[in-house]
Amino acid sequence: MSLEAKKRPHILTIAGSDSSGGAGIQADLKTIEAFGCHGSSVMTALTAQNTKGVQGVHEIPADFVIQQLKSVVSDDYPRCIKLGMLTNSSIILALSKELKKLDTIVVLDPVMISTSGHTLLPEDAIQAMNELYPLVDYFTPNIPEAIKLTGYSSRTSENSSQLNLEEMIELAKITNTKTRAFTVLLKGGHTSISGREILEIRKREKGDYEIFWEEGDDDLDTIEVLSLYSSYKQIPQSKQEEKELVVDVLVNKGEVVALFVGKKIDSNNTHGTGCTLSTAIACAHATQPRDVPNAILRIFKKAISYTKTAIASSYPFGHGHGPLNHAHLSVRRALPPPTKYNPHPFVSHLIQSNLPLWKSYVKHPFVVQLGKGTLPKECFEHYIKQDYHYLKHYARAHALGAYKASTFEDIKAFTDIAGHIARESEMHVSYCESFGISLDQLQSTPESAPCAAYARYVIDIGTQGDILDLYMSVASCLIGYGEVGLWLKKQVELGEAKMEGNLYKKWMEDYSGKDFLGAVERGIENLERRIAEDPPTEARLARLTAIWHECVRLESAFWDMGLNLIK
Amino acid sequence: MSLEAKKRPHILTIAGSDSSGGAGIQADLKTIEAFGCHGSSVMTALTAQNTKGVQGVHEIPADFVIQQLKSVVSDDYPRCIKLGMLTNSSIILALSKELKKLDTIVVLDPVMISTSGHTLLPEDAIQAMNELYPLVDYFTPNIPEAIKLTGYSSRTSENSSQLNLEEMIELAKITNTKTRAFTVLLKGGHTSISGREILEIRKREKGDYEIFWEEGDDDLDTIEVLSLYSSYKQIPQSKQEEKELVVDVLVNKGEVVALFVGKKIDSNNTHGTGCTLSTAIACAHATQPRDVPNAILRIFKKAISYTKTAIASSYPFGHGHGPLNHAHLSVRRALPPPTKYNPHPFVSHLIQSNLPLWKSYVKHPFVVQLGKGTLPKECFEHYIKQDYHYLKHYARAHALGAYKASTFEDIKAFTDIAGHIARESEMHVSYCESFGISLDQLQSTPESAPCAAYARYVIDIGTQGDILDLYMSVASCLIGYGEVGLWLKKQVELGEAKMEGNLYKKWMEDYSGKDFLGAVERGIENLERRIAEDPPTEARLARLTAIWHECVRLESAFWDMGLNLIK
Repeated sequence: MSLEAKKRPHILTIAGSDSSGGAGIQADLKTIEAFGCHGSSVMTALTAQNTKGVQGVHEIPADFVIQQLKSVVSDDYPRCIKLGMLTNSSIILALSKELKKLDTIVVLDPVMISTSGHTLLPEDAIQAMNELYPLVDYFTPNIPEAIKLTGYSSRTSENSSQLNLEEMIELAKITNTKTRAFTVLLKGGHTSISGREILEIRKREKGDYEIFWEEGDDDLDTIEVLSLYSSYKQIPQSKQEEKELVVDVLVNKGEVVALFVGKKIDSNNTHGTGCTLSTAIACAHATQPRDVPNAILRIFKKAISYTKTAIASSYPFGHGHGPLNHAHLSVRRALPPPTKYNPHPFVSHLIQSNLPLWKSYVKHPFVVQLGKGTLPKECFEHYIKQDYHYLKHYARAHALGAYKASTFEDIKAFTDIAGHIARESEMHVSYCESFGISLDQLQSTPESAPCAAYARYVIDIGTQGDILDLYMSVASCLIGYGEVGLWLKKQVELGEAKMEGNLYKKWMEDYSGKDFLGAVERGIENLERRIAEDPPTEARLARLTAIWHECVRLESAFWDMGLNLIK
Repeated sequence: MSLEAKKRPHILTIAGSDSSGGAGIQADLKTIEAFGCHGSSVMTALTAQNTKGVQGVHEIPADFVIQQLKSVVSDDYPRCIKLGMLTNSSIILALSKELKKLDTIVVLDPVMISTSGHTLLPEDAIQAMNELYPLVDYFTPNIPEAIKLTGYSSRTSENSSQLNLEEMIELAKITNTKTRAFTVLLKGGHTSISGREILEIRKREKGDYEIFWEEGDDDLDTIEVLSLYSSYKQIPQSKQEEKELVVDVLVNKGEVVALFVGKKIDSNNTHGTGCTLSTAIACAHATQPRDVPNAILRIFKKAISYTKTAIASSYPFGHGHGPLNHAHLSVRRALPPPTKYNPHPFVSHLIQSNLPLWKSYVKHPFVVQLGKGTLPKECFEHYIKQDYHYLKHYARAHALGAYKASTFEDIKAFTDIAGHIARESEMHVSYCESFGISLDQLQSTPESAPCAAYARYVIDIGTQGDILDLYMSVASCLIGYGEVGLWLKKQVELGEAKMEGNLYKKWMEDYSGKDFLGAVERGIENLERRIAEDPPTEARLARLTAIWHECVRLESAFWDMGLNLIK
């Protein structure tokens, strides 16, 4: 298990700051974090802003914009740069000059005209943008921006943004050709498309390009059983005329690559959608393995799906257009990852989640008296006879693990342990003989209630749960006896326990010896590895911890049984 | 299952921007995101900065700082405000005036003197800070800053920051009293403390306050078995004199509350540690349920532990002091969360992860011919006889589910289904009689290989795995037959299949009927609920998906068996 952290893709955003945290570099940094990349930022302007609007703007001098850029790229070269609000022509021209020197993927969200139709860039800045386009790999205008850039006008609608699907496709192609940006995604949020338009285009184009439905369904009637309950994906005959779909058009070298189709999401929380989508494109590009087929398509599918889910799962904030939920890609860890300084977060959590319970087991009076040599012999004998029964079930539990295993590796690990326990049982027998207990006596001693309760609990958990549950049910015996062995050894050093002249010397030596502690170490590493590879959620961790606690309690009761001669 | 998102705690950071993304508002926003809160930000200065140093600073006018603050707080009131680099006295004085009007938790990281000893605030600004302290709930100076504030001088060391533990405690108390900040955490990174000092303080103070070890171990010798392999937590006699520990001292109302002890982390990636810790304190405060006991202690434990793990799990970036890993609190989701627009992300994933396989099952030639009424009677009879065997195992699988269940709710759900299947078997028998197949014939028909392969796979998965594995193994039969029923019904509407005069009419009616589709709906909802409550990691999802694919394949083979009369 390597604890060395890998380098993360570095994404630089060059954009404005939104004090409310919903758009601008704040939305970008949140998105970059969600994709597991490192985010850096160059600010072009600060806004005093909230969900209701922009109350003030502080522009950053072009030379300080460039100074920020130089500081970042001279130290760690970004894999992708996302350009958002660029504020004015002097910043745009200065950036164009610098970006020409860099060899990196550039995503441009023009941030010229807001969703509400408001112009965000002065006219000379819009002109200056022409310098940038040829440097751009992914360009994401909305319809008014594309119209502004190309001078396109609708033949069918008085409201220039209300294009039909054919017009959108035409506009996307023209924008691609005119700007010379490598790939253009024309965002269709300003117009509504009917199901019939999609079906007609699909019929006519005969598969020349892909049509993606929101959640990845590439076929209109493949999954009846889900559309029963979420009928939005279906276009029943009766609904084909309703204009309720949003389509984004992806073009590359003047040719349509794909249409992304989804139902308009009925949400007020769309502040920062454009920022989020363009940054998600940069992140999807940077995190995608090289040389996968259909690379561009995958990048856009991922980024669009991320953004739509971020809107659909948004949370209440402010009194106007709220932010997206950027964090939906991840779930809270129940445990920290293992590091050099905390290599055993799982076992450490198990023990510390109920320290008094753990102490009641590993520092039980039975153990203390055993270490001092004052434990009555009959108590130890009662314990050791029951331990013989327990060991048999403990071996069976490992055999059950092998039965439930999915890999030869696991089968081998479990059968090795089961076999080892079976062989050790012979040593157990001869050790018992040294106390005058015969094999016959061992076998004919009835199983005590505490022994049966514990052993059968282990077997039941193993039967009921999966292989990790089973590992949990056998862990506290292994780890706890290691702890007892080590603690007793330390007590001997401190003069609180004795080895020489102690009736139980061999027992103490066995559990503090190299062989047994090696097994303990392997057991701990195995648990940590499994947990690190498949980190449990809070719910799963709670279940695993409950098994651990129950086993620790039953272990403690097992010592009680010895000390109090419980049948 | 509610799909409504809850409001998140709103944390506002007022600080500088670090273009490299490691410190300042960038570190703050990343930390806030990690804690599942909403981050907003007010900038006091921009820096052109990288991991090697600060190359340029652009100060923000005090009135624009206040304008940003007003925009944010007038729209969504923050639960906590974190103050970082405040740049100059006019910003500090303007902020003090505004903050006095707000009733919110304030965390102040003074950012006066850097870890390397560099002074970051001009002298008049340090004086102006006196206005702020009384407004502060949590104050986190490092040793040089606390010395600067209090004029404290060490009695034992020439290097004024190299305090011993007793001096640190004294300095923390004086800082608390002098500033009137509610709680002070004196960060000990500038000095090193020996194990002996801790043991002596512990002995003398007799539990007046808590001493926390890095990973939460409050006892020096409780967990021998872990310290065997990560010995840093232990202070063996021989090492007690070594000064290798870092101690943070927490004081409240002039009294020590706790010492946080850890080994110095040997990492170059500490850029932004102070920003991260103070923001983590704000987040830990905001996300903690009200009225928990030891509230302040828990907040600091959580924030310190978060920050240390962020350093210990940091990744390579740049050529100087790299950033922390802010994202370590979460793991990547393998599936998006369910939303109103995508309520079935899990079942949708299962089906779409191999659409051709799914189609080979639900649109199998056996199904197509059955719908048209052209399926040879002997094929259907062969199928229906084997289906009788399969149903028995399918009922057994649900009984096994009840056996493996942990709650009465699950036991009831599973036994209901098993009982329902057993009762339905009588209808199956009478349906078979309509084809002239007697119960005797049904029972004496040998199980075909495809039937045995499928049925025993389901039973084996149920035995081997946990209850979710078992649910997976029975899901594709339920959901797939629902799909077949619905699809055939639609084909009838389209004239591609027929109901009237079709020998298999009753079969088609059963699987497209309300009863069966209700069971399908409950099955889908049950799976989605379990997955939403305990979201699978990539590894777990891959295992579940593999079970689904295998079952779909075996279902398809079951149709093959019917169509080709396979024994």
